[in-house]
Amino acid sequence: MKSCGLIVEYNPFHFGHQYHLKQSKEASGADCMIAVMSGNFLQRGEPAIIDKWHRAQIALSQGVDIVLELPYAFAVQNSDLFAKGAVFTLHEIGIDTICFGSEQGDITPFTKAYDYLNSHQEYYKDSLHHFLDQGYSFPEASRHAYKAIGLSEDSIDLTQPNNILGFSYTKTILDYKLPIIPMTIQRTKSGYHDETISHKIASATSIRKSILKQQEMTAEAEGSLPPASVNLLKEYGDKANGWHYWERYFPLLHYKLTTLSPEEIRTFHGVEEGLEFRLKHTIQEATTFEEWMNLLKTKRYTWTRLQRTITHILTNTKKNELHSLHELEQVPYVRLLGMSKTGRTYIKEQKKKMNVPILTNLQSGDHEFVTIEERSVDAYLSCLPLDQKKSLRKREIGPPVMPHL
Amino acid sequence: MKSCGLIVEYNPFHFGHQYHLKQSKEASGADCMIAVMSGNFLQRGEPAIIDKWHRAQIALSQGVDIVLELPYAFAVQNSDLFAKGAVFTLHEIGIDTICFGSEQGDITPFTKAYDYLNSHQEYYKDSLHHFLDQGYSFPEASRHAYKAIGLSEDSIDLTQPNNILGFSYTKTILDYKLPIIPMTIQRTKSGYHDETISHKIASATSIRKSILKQQEMTAEAEGSLPPASVNLLKEYGDKANGWHYWERYFPLLHYKLTTLSPEEIRTFHGVEEGLEFRLKHTIQEATTFEEWMNLLKTKRYTWTRLQRTITHILTNTKKNELHSLHELEQVPYVRLLGMSKTGRTYIKEQKKKMNVPILTNLQSGDHEFVTIEERSVDAYLSCLPLDQKKSLRKREIGPPVMPHL
Repeated sequence: MKSCGLIVEYNPFHFGHQYHLKQSKEASGADCMIAVMSGNFLQRGEPAIIDKWHRAQIALSQGVDIVLELPYAFAVQNSDLFAKGAVFTLHEIGIDTICFGSEQGDITPFTKAYDYLNSHQEYYKDSLHHFLDQGYSFPEASRHAYKAIGLSEDSIDLTQPNNILGFSYTKTILDYKLPIIPMTIQRTKSGYHDETISHKIASATSIRKSILKQQEMTAEAEGSLPPASVNLLKEYGDKANGWHYWERYFPLLHYKLTTLSPEEIRTFHGVEEGLEFRLKHTIQEATTFEEWMNLLKTKRYTWTRLQRTITHILTNTKKNELHSLHELEQVPYVRLLGMSKTGRTYIKEQKKKMNVPILTNLQSGDHEFVTIEERSVDAYLSCLPLDQKKSLRKREIGPPVMPHL
Repeated sequence: MKSCGLIVEYNPFHFGHQYHLKQSKEASGADCMIAVMSGNFLQRGEPAIIDKWHRAQIALSQGVDIVLELPYAFAVQNSDLFAKGAVFTLHEIGIDTICFGSEQGDITPFTKAYDYLNSHQEYYKDSLHHFLDQGYSFPEASRHAYKAIGLSEDSIDLTQPNNILGFSYTKTILDYKLPIIPMTIQRTKSGYHDETISHKIASATSIRKSILKQQEMTAEAEGSLPPASVNLLKEYGDKANGWHYWERYFPLLHYKLTTLSPEEIRTFHGVEEGLEFRLKHTIQEATTFEEWMNLLKTKRYTWTRLQRTITHILTNTKKNELHSLHELEQVPYVRLLGMSKTGRTYIKEQKKKMNVPILTNLQSGDHEFVTIEERSVDAYLSCLPLDQKKSLRKREIGPPVMPHL
């Protein structure tokens, strides 16, 4: 069976994702579509609007055959580690191609940029450090470094989030010489025609903004979401007293940071260069998460980097738990969140060839990443009324989503 | 000026406290009444129903001249350490007598029990350990040990909470040979006549129960409280969206304990003998504080001991912060929460003779106990909406309460 891997967050699944899924299947000619998806916390350091189980269920309803969990340890990280965790997971499950969305819709600029950067590695590194030392944030410093080494922006703009991720996937495949074909399809922002119905393509950000502002499903959002997304968003919202977003966690963060010492705060992953004092000082002044972020951000710390650090604080993730990520040569396990009939057939076949276990529930494995995962679930649900927390937490030790089995 | 020290919690100040205050002043013949009071957390391991500032204000309105804060480090402790902190604080401020309430109303049984225990110390210790080893809680084990060494229960029952505290005060004075006269007046449970008005004496526990159940001032409680107590309880309730009690903190404790590792939980003061696993396991099952406590308690752990441990978890108080308490030969500072005109005159005079600083606001001292104190304020206010938390927290760095100055 031919398989194609997608790297996704589906926060929430919208028509743009549907387009990507369909086009990837066509372009790769795959029989089995496999998505590796961030769990409850996302790459940009945010809680997912609804939990991983409901997002997996939507994905399956839309034609994904297997949904795997990207471990928290990799998910809430910069693009390089995120890509490493995602590509390694897809590699373990034996996919043939990885297909990501990009502005170009052509893989050549990505592989060319890879070759160019490889042959100018030292120059790039020196340049990057030079700009970092000047107090630029990482994305700013790398933009300047790319320019300095002559990587032309018109071939591929490596400062755009989607290009950065796509480049990181390509880089991981090439760095580790994995037997995976990297592919890309062009992202679409305008409407496209799916048979006779015209769908509106909106970004996940704008959809979240719209429904979080109203605290209910809006006509605007509904026009950009497949019915399964609309229904499961509503269903989860009922179970969890609303959707997840940072403001709901702010009282917990406030409690935590005001009662921890700077020395303790320094142990969290991402807290560097005296940030512990700034975190502690600014949170006393703020009464909302947004107010706090505005007090907290500086030229050096991007909003995303700060949010990732705050996610690690919320989930109690320490530096010493994640220091080995760079050295890892494979993921320690593959966790199955859901599968279709096709997915099950694929896994049955693939299982025999795998080097690491497939976890179908958390009890079956006890790797340290599983401990982090469990904790991240508790942290994710910590903003809910306790009876709802207790009932949603049970899902974590249940079986994968298998809607048609 | 002659001074008399009282050791109090005033949670909240009721007619029984008024009686104690009046009788102590009469019996001691003091011009200046000085109360050392637990701050926001109490000896039995509970948040005070209203904050220390409002409780100090009520005390001053009722005739107390000086209110000093018993540092958190001593307040949320067994009777011996509680007594040590309180008596040492009163000693620093130069009081002549300490007057506590007891069932007997006679100091002789206390001093006699002290002598008897002193001359049977080894026997008592062996006996105590014997019963502790059998799995009894500390109060139970000591009750059996008292019996075993022949300390007669009819002279003084050292298993009654009030007697335990009174005995601990006496013991501290005598152990450290402090120039303080221990006195006791009889507690009254029935009504007593104050001029022509008959007041109802009710326990603080029953008053709290009544108003917390209704979430508003009840006729029952109002009958047992001086008007100043009623008014300031209402005033604080308006400022803090209600009164403080454990259930309001339960979501924070739930978040904290589910996201900390057993190894981290073990670092909190009071977590011994594998309690970290029990804390973590039981809290996942519970949806209310009371439910949790019922799952948590065992023969070995009394409700009070568990509550104290939970208070240390809430306030992030670690073993290594409190290990030096037993060795301390004096309190590091005396913190003033409020004073009357008489109190101010007394302090002016006394200040010259003191060995430790008087803190009138937290910025003026930086002892580690002050760090713990500040943290305990943040923890205490952490169950409030954040705008109210922010505004009440400002009080902590303000001046003492001085209603008539």
